[in-house]
Amino acid sequence: MHAIVIEEPGGPEALVWTEVPDPEPGPGEVVVEVTAAAVNRADVMQRQGHYPPPPGAPPYPGLECSGVITAVGPEVTGHHIGERVCALLAGGGYAERVAVPAGQLLPVPQGLSLQEAAALPEVACTVWSNVVDIARLRKGKTLLVHGGGGGIGTFAIQLGKALGATVVVTAREQKHEQLLALGADLAVDYTGTDFVEATRDFTEGHGADVILDIIGARYLSRNIAALAAGGRIVTIGLQGGRKGELDFGALMAKRGSIIATTLRARPVKDKSRIVRGVHDMVWPLVDAGAIRPIIDRTVAMRDAAEAHRLMEASDHLGKIVLLP
Amino acid sequence: MHAIVIEEPGGPEALVWTEVPDPEPGPGEVVVEVTAAAVNRADVMQRQGHYPPPPGAPPYPGLECSGVITAVGPEVTGHHIGERVCALLAGGGYAERVAVPAGQLLPVPQGLSLQEAAALPEVACTVWSNVVDIARLRKGKTLLVHGGGGGIGTFAIQLGKALGATVVVTAREQKHEQLLALGADLAVDYTGTDFVEATRDFTEGHGADVILDIIGARYLSRNIAALAAGGRIVTIGLQGGRKGELDFGALMAKRGSIIATTLRARPVKDKSRIVRGVHDMVWPLVDAGAIRPIIDRTVAMRDAAEAHRLMEASDHLGKIVLLP
Repeated sequence: MHAIVIEEPGGPEALVWTEVPDPEPGPGEVVVEVTAAAVNRADVMQRQGHYPPPPGAPPYPGLECSGVITAVGPEVTGHHIGERVCALLAGGGYAERVAVPAGQLLPVPQGLSLQEAAALPEVACTVWSNVVDIARLRKGKTLLVHGGGGGIGTFAIQLGKALGATVVVTAREQKHEQLLALGADLAVDYTGTDFVEATRDFTEGHGADVILDIIGARYLSRNIAALAAGGRIVTIGLQGGRKGELDFGALMAKRGSIIATTLRARPVKDKSRIVRGVHDMVWPLVDAGAIRPIIDRTVAMRDAAEAHRLMEASDHLGKIVLLP
Repeated sequence: MHAIVIEEPGGPEALVWTEVPDPEPGPGEVVVEVTAAAVNRADVMQRQGHYPPPPGAPPYPGLECSGVITAVGPEVTGHHIGERVCALLAGGGYAERVAVPAGQLLPVPQGLSLQEAAALPEVACTVWSNVVDIARLRKGKTLLVHGGGGGIGTFAIQLGKALGATVVVTAREQKHEQLLALGADLAVDYTGTDFVEATRDFTEGHGADVILDIIGARYLSRNIAALAAGGRIVTIGLQGGRKGELDFGALMAKRGSIIATTLRARPVKDKSRIVRGVHDMVWPLVDAGAIRPIIDRTVAMRDAAEAHRLMEASDHLGKIVLLP
C-alpha cells in the first residue's frame, strides 16, 4: 500500500507518499481500507518531530479515518469484513490501510457519507472526554473555547449547545459569522479584545465554568481570571508555550482546576472507554443532526504537504480531509 | 459572652479574650454553647490579617467546634435545644457561643466526648471534600499527604487507609513513628529525602494518584513529578508560596490535574452538601473506630495565643483544642 512517510522531521515537504508494507491485524484489531482521513494539529507536531507516535502505533501520521473493514484479527467479535466504520487512531491514518483496535471503531452516523465521517472521531473523542467526561460541562453552564474555528472548536461549539450550555469562542473576526451560525453565543476576536472581560461581561460576572484551551502558558493567568467559581481549565494544546507562572492564590480564590491532557498517549483500554462514551452520548446527537462534521475542504492524500500548509496558516474553518 | 477578638492583625498576642455581644440565630441557624473549639492553620492566617472572614461570618477565628444547642432560629427543622453537636464554622469558634447554619451541624460520633468531637468537623470536611469528592481517591490507589503530622495530615492518613489506599506522608522524622502507627505506609522526612523518588520507589514507579498539598508553589514541579498518570494534585495551603512556574508539558505527560481549593469561602449550600457527604461516608468510619480524632493537647481558650505559638512551631501531632 501507500502511506505518507516522514523520512526526516521538518516542514510540510517532509510528508512523502511512499510505498510501504501492508498492515496486518493483531489480536483485537481490524484492518480498515481508508476512504478518508482527517488532519489534526498533532499531525503537524509529529511532522516537526515534536510528537512521536506512542509505542505500538503505526509510524505514519493520522489520528482518525473512515473506511471499510478488509480484515478481522483474532479475538475480535461483533465486526465483519465489508463493514463501514470510522475510527480513532493512535497513528497511521495517512495511508491506504490501517490496523485499528476494535474498541476504537465507531459506526458511520446516520445520513453521513464515509468522507464526512472521517472528520469526527478524533474531535468527538477529544471534546467529549475533556469537556464532558473530565470537566463535567452541564446544561446552563458556560463553556469558553479557544480556537473556535478549528476542528476541535467547531465541534465543541456544537456539543456545548447540544448540551444546553452557553458557548463563548475566541477566533479571528473573519470566522465569527460562521461560528455564530454554528451556535456560538459570543465570538471574541482575540487579536483586539480581552476575552476575560468579554466573557465576564457576557455572563454577568459569572465567568466560564469550563475552558477548553489549546494555548497553554500564554493564556494561563487570563484563563484563571476568566474562570467561574469552581471552574475547570482543560488544556489540550500548547500553542502559546509550555511554561508559565501559576498564581495559586488566584486559582484558590476561584477554587479552580487546571487539567492538561492528551488523548493519543492513553492506553487502548482508556481510548475504548472514551469511544464507548462518545458512541452512547455523542453519536445520537450526530444521528439527529444536532452536530455535523464541519469540513473546510478535501485534499488528495498524496498532497498532505499542502493540507499541512493550510492548517498552519489557520485560515481554515473546520476540518481538512485527505483522500487516498 | 466572651470571644477571642483580633483588634489588630499581628503575632499571637493579637488574640485577646474579650467580652462581646451574644450571637442571635438567624433564619436557618442555631446557636451552640461551645464546649471545645479546635485550632486550624487558617486561624493563624486570619490573625496575621491574610485571611479575612467571608461576608456574614462571625469576626472571631475558629472554623470548628462542639457543644450544645441553646437556641434554634426560624426555618430550622430536626434540631432542638439541648442537642449535643459538632459543627463546621465559617468563623467564630473561639467564643463561648456561636451561630451556625443548621446544614453545617454534625452529630457527635459514637464513643467520642464533646471535647474530642471538636477536633473533627473542619479536617473531616476538608479531607473528604478534597481527597474523595474532588480528587476521587479509591481503594488500591496511592495518596501522598504533605504535612502528615498536622490535623489534616493525621486525618488524611486514617481516611486514606480506611478507603483501602496506600498512604505516603511527608513529615519531620520525630513524627514518623506515630504516623506509621496511625496507618501511613511510608513516612518521608522532607528535610533530607526527595519525596518524588521515595514515592516512585515505594509504588514501583507508579507515583501518587492523589496528592493532598499544603505547600503550593515550592512543591509544584516536584508534585507533578511524583504524580501517577491521570493523577490529581489538590492544593489547600500555600505554606511554600503562591506563585510558581507551571510546566504544562510535564503536567500533560501525566494527564494531571492541579486543583486549588478553600473550604471556608464556599457558600453555605456547598458546605451543607459537604457536611452531608461527611455524615454519610465518614461518620460511620468514626463510629466504628476506624478513624479517631488525634488531639495533641487542650489549651484554655483565653490562652489561644499560646495555642497559636504551638501551631506555628509545628511540633504538635494532630489537633490543638481550645476550652472556653
